[in-house]
Amino acid sequence: MEQSILEKTKGRVSYHDSVEEMLKRIKEDGLSSVFSRWEVQEKIRCKFCLQGVSCQLCTHGPCRISNDLEGADKGVCGIDADAMAMRNLLMRNIMGAATYGHHAYEAFRTLKATGEGKTTFEIKDVEKLKWMCEKVGIDTNQETNQLAIKLAELLDDELKVNPDRESIMVEAFAPKKRKPLWRDLHLYPSGLQHEVENAIASCLTNVDGDYVSLAKKALRLGLSTIYTAQIGLEMTQDILFGTPMPHEVDVDLGIMDPDYVNIAFNGHQPWIGVATLQKAKQQEYQEKAKKAGAKGIRIVGSIETGQELLQRFEVDDVFVGLMGNWLSLEPFLATGTVDALVMEENCSPPAMDQYAEKYQVTLISVSTIIGVPGTQHEMPYYPSKADEMAENCIDIAIENFKKRHNNIKPMVPKNKTKAIAGFSTEAVLKAIGNDLNALVDVIAKGQIKGIVALANCSTLRNGPQDWNTVNLTKELIKKDILVVAAGCGNHGLEVAGMCNLEAVEQAGEGLKAVCKSLGIPPVLSFGTCTDTGRISMLVTALADHLDADISELPIAVTAPEWMEQKATIDGIFAVAYGAYTHLSPTPFITGAPNLVKLVTEDVEALTGGKIALGDDPVQVADDIEAHINSKRKAMGLS
Amino acid sequence: MEQSILEKTKGRVSYHDSVEEMLKRIKEDGLSSVFSRWEVQEKIRCKFCLQGVSCQLCTHGPCRISNDLEGADKGVCGIDADAMAMRNLLMRNIMGAATYGHHAYEAFRTLKATGEGKTTFEIKDVEKLKWMCEKVGIDTNQETNQLAIKLAELLDDELKVNPDRESIMVEAFAPKKRKPLWRDLHLYPSGLQHEVENAIASCLTNVDGDYVSLAKKALRLGLSTIYTAQIGLEMTQDILFGTPMPHEVDVDLGIMDPDYVNIAFNGHQPWIGVATLQKAKQQEYQEKAKKAGAKGIRIVGSIETGQELLQRFEVDDVFVGLMGNWLSLEPFLATGTVDALVMEENCSPPAMDQYAEKYQVTLISVSTIIGVPGTQHEMPYYPSKADEMAENCIDIAIENFKKRHNNIKPMVPKNKTKAIAGFSTEAVLKAIGNDLNALVDVIAKGQIKGIVALANCSTLRNGPQDWNTVNLTKELIKKDILVVAAGCGNHGLEVAGMCNLEAVEQAGEGLKAVCKSLGIPPVLSFGTCTDTGRISMLVTALADHLDADISELPIAVTAPEWMEQKATIDGIFAVAYGAYTHLSPTPFITGAPNLVKLVTEDVEALTGGKIALGDDPVQVADDIEAHINSKRKAMGLS
Repeated sequence: MEQSILEKTKGRVSYHDSVEEMLKRIKEDGLSSVFSRWEVQEKIRCKFCLQGVSCQLCTHGPCRISNDLEGADKGVCGIDADAMAMRNLLMRNIMGAATYGHHAYEAFRTLKATGEGKTTFEIKDVEKLKWMCEKVGIDTNQETNQLAIKLAELLDDELKVNPDRESIMVEAFAPKKRKPLWRDLHLYPSGLQHEVENAIASCLTNVDGDYVSLAKKALRLGLSTIYTAQIGLEMTQDILFGTPMPHEVDVDLGIMDPDYVNIAFNGHQPWIGVATLQKAKQQEYQEKAKKAGAKGIRIVGSIETGQELLQRFEVDDVFVGLMGNWLSLEPFLATGTVDALVMEENCSPPAMDQYAEKYQVTLISVSTIIGVPGTQHEMPYYPSKADEMAENCIDIAIENFKKRHNNIKPMVPKNKTKAIAGFSTEAVLKAIGNDLNALVDVIAKGQIKGIVALANCSTLRNGPQDWNTVNLTKELIKKDILVVAAGCGNHGLEVAGMCNLEAVEQAGEGLKAVCKSLGIPPVLSFGTCTDTGRISMLVTALADHLDADISELPIAVTAPEWMEQKATIDGIFAVAYGAYTHLSPTPFITGAPNLVKLVTEDVEALTGGKIALGDDPVQVADDIEAHINSKRKAMGLS
Repeated sequence: MEQSILEKTKGRVSYHDSVEEMLKRIKEDGLSSVFSRWEVQEKIRCKFCLQGVSCQLCTHGPCRISNDLEGADKGVCGIDADAMAMRNLLMRNIMGAATYGHHAYEAFRTLKATGEGKTTFEIKDVEKLKWMCEKVGIDTNQETNQLAIKLAELLDDELKVNPDRESIMVEAFAPKKRKPLWRDLHLYPSGLQHEVENAIASCLTNVDGDYVSLAKKALRLGLSTIYTAQIGLEMTQDILFGTPMPHEVDVDLGIMDPDYVNIAFNGHQPWIGVATLQKAKQQEYQEKAKKAGAKGIRIVGSIETGQELLQRFEVDDVFVGLMGNWLSLEPFLATGTVDALVMEENCSPPAMDQYAEKYQVTLISVSTIIGVPGTQHEMPYYPSKADEMAENCIDIAIENFKKRHNNIKPMVPKNKTKAIAGFSTEAVLKAIGNDLNALVDVIAKGQIKGIVALANCSTLRNGPQDWNTVNLTKELIKKDILVVAAGCGNHGLEVAGMCNLEAVEQAGEGLKAVCKSLGIPPVLSFGTCTDTGRISMLVTALADHLDADISELPIAVTAPEWMEQKATIDGIFAVAYGAYTHLSPTPFITGAPNLVKLVTEDVEALTGGKIALGDDPVQVADDIEAHINSKRKAMGLS
């Protein structure tokens, strides 16, 4: 008889000891957490919703598709199971896409204001700015700030491209061999804001009731997201804060010291985190904290915002590293060491008010999108106000320290691990002497059998936090498959020690040799889920170098613990991009048999990509290896 | 004991005899319809979904809020019932807003292309173009086409206004006294595309979990929708096709003649409908149809696109009127008289393929958003291709006629009614000699006690099609309350004979006298749901004329049979606008007690508007009258 996950995992709910330890405190203190609420909701799940065949859009609903009742094969409007499930999925894709769009808007707005000299930031990577300008056809014979303004305006305009004109970013960054294919399939995208609006209008009651049509809209939207929003925003962040280069950092809850004023930045958008870090490094602010009885001020990276900082800044006396991924957030607050949690995007879960109260944390919002109950300070983001907002965050945190340090007994797990963060396309190229042939060579020889991009969240659906992410990764590197990681899954891998040089020992012989010769870990930390586009740039470079299509390469994508809506659009992008795309948990589409067949089988004949399912890490790794081997064989590699 | 709706309505499912008659054929022919599927789904409704306390966003869900299970007061992420229900509602608001945004995009794009001489359209209302240009600060000392281009560019840019600059349209069209209030409440909106993106990013898992914050975003979005999308698009359609002026038209299924090539335009966007009507009026095309054995070509208005045509074009030998509202659509196809159903927006329900097959109708899509199964021709809309697309529609319909006329036995109900369509702010002003004092005077005297804007869909949730809409309207006019109608509810009223001069006899004495003296019906047909903004322009004119705030006026809004997502954003707009806003059916929020209190009570202290509930037309009319009387009293009117 097969063991259940809980048997296999001996009652654990997280891969990480630090989280397990903190959950005991949380339980003793009588607070609920994502972990405890998960157990309750497990008892009252709706199977229609789980299968994607429930719709609540209009007042003729809620409707459910059921095979057990005659006439219930369609909703009141007449929509069938396949279209209902695909429409539900597309709405989630839209949510993810628009959130990336929001991030991109803030990035381009920040770049422009910086070029205009209105912010506390400066153009840190001038070379990258020039490179981007060249890529998109901006005359680089201009002053740096002027270039920044021009680029920001162009990138913002790219979000608004409609069918009456073509996207410059798609043309500049899409793989050579993909472009004609996308045109043939009517998948060549417009700008994100146009595609989002078009897709939403399609999802309205009584507009698009055809699952194939809806699925194609999802694929277009995925391409639009990566090319007109994500890549531009990532490059913008590099221009402003530096292109990531590998360096050693500290991760896990053990980085916390209760005697400091600890300000954590949580979300995905690094503006105020960077501004505050700049300030906290000034003696004046450290002194201010010391006057309040603290040893100083420390900046803590929380989830994706933390990873953005981690990619670009050395860990030192002021910036102490990353606490973990989103499921570690409630345990993090329960350490009683956090003075301010500064939030600007997901994941800022809504029940942190109980933690803020119990462990004396001040919740601060620095974005109009945030609305966490218990938030005491709301500062809408304006680039020109970043410095002032950072100042406010520091003042608020110092005030909090005075109460928190006296009243709350800290509890800090000892766990602290090294990780090498800061990989990027440029970093990889640098590591191989700027010669892609070196990478091609080790792949051709089979030392690296293939590359898997792991980009996702962390979820309890398949077992303990990060269990599948870590175990799948272990299986993959054992098979000489290099893992390039992004998102909360990446943080899970960092905390689990998979992104440091010791992890090389867990790799297969071929990969081990390559890692040792290059001095890199077997899992390359490429950043956040927003770096899906960044990863694709590396793969595109490889494909274009080989004059091959993406679908011909020995690569795959996996999201072994995806949780929210941005992950869904990253996954859809991967399918349109031509990648074998493993998703776990299974999306809510199992009540839609034709749709399942479309996305797991038939789509491969169109884009070369497809969705692969499976919740067991060993099996998933075997499936990915089989896929990679089949692509190797087709390329004439053994 | 209270009678059920079905007892009261003696087994009917529609107010309209024509629909009842056709449903018999549909049943005999073994087809399902919205009416039959409604009965099935009634048996398997989910009560959590009905109450708004079900969430399917992330893989930690689906979650349900339940008071029956300890710990189930929150979802896994930690969201509570109020925020969950409000987030669900906001997502529906967003869908409606973005769909209006899509319509606006197509309108502005069409205006621009027309100014550039690239379309088959021309600037029909030059005065209105100039008036709009003056309103938004465009120098009118320019050639007409140049003005059209400038206006189109400005309106398109208005959709993209972000917090770094202010909307020109809001400033130009918002009521004087509302503007400072909206600023104080942080409800003064940016452009629709920005607000949509901001709201979506807020709805992502773990971003905004605060029902008050989410509700405020809905209110902002409502204002953004009307001022940066709807009003501009309506004025654009006036500029292109003429400002509506009252004229008598024919409605109901009796307008159909099976011996003609009948092309019906369905949705909300009139571009190809107008282009085809222009063509069909040419002898050449009539001859073409005659050669195929038909008596000629006829253009039929279907739902909102039909109403757009109805508002601006005389009914004649070629344009024969309006078939009814969206619930009449399947019955309409079952008459066996329709050759082409040309679709561009909602409501184009997804199960029309069975009708297309059975009654030999060709389904044509003329918008990228449409995806109706069984659609045989897909033509994405480009303004410059409107003429070619119209030509294609005619050719396709003529081909269809050859088969349809030979094979399908037509069945056309005799019902045909007169309605006066074509009201607009300008038309009302014209009727009162361009002197708002005349309107103020009859209101002050109590001849007209107040004005109710009825804007909505049609639904079976509260009983037969249009039952509540018609009966509520009857009650209101009896009480000397003038009804200004838009949307599918308006079509229901037109078909029910409430928009013609005979209906004056059903009005109270005061209203009757006013109607007779002005030669208008007691229900003014103001167009489609997209004309919510147009109605607000009349109310704003009245408020500004009186130097009063909207919330002080003896007015109300009702959506007695709202069905889809655009209706939800119109309703939310009305609350932000300061109006008493009756909604039936009750939105899916009843599992969220604090939210219910917020939107039905507490919000009144903020915006002066609120949501009123109630499904019984007599009671609703009494409540509206009480509200209007209280406002009259506060103004010192008896």
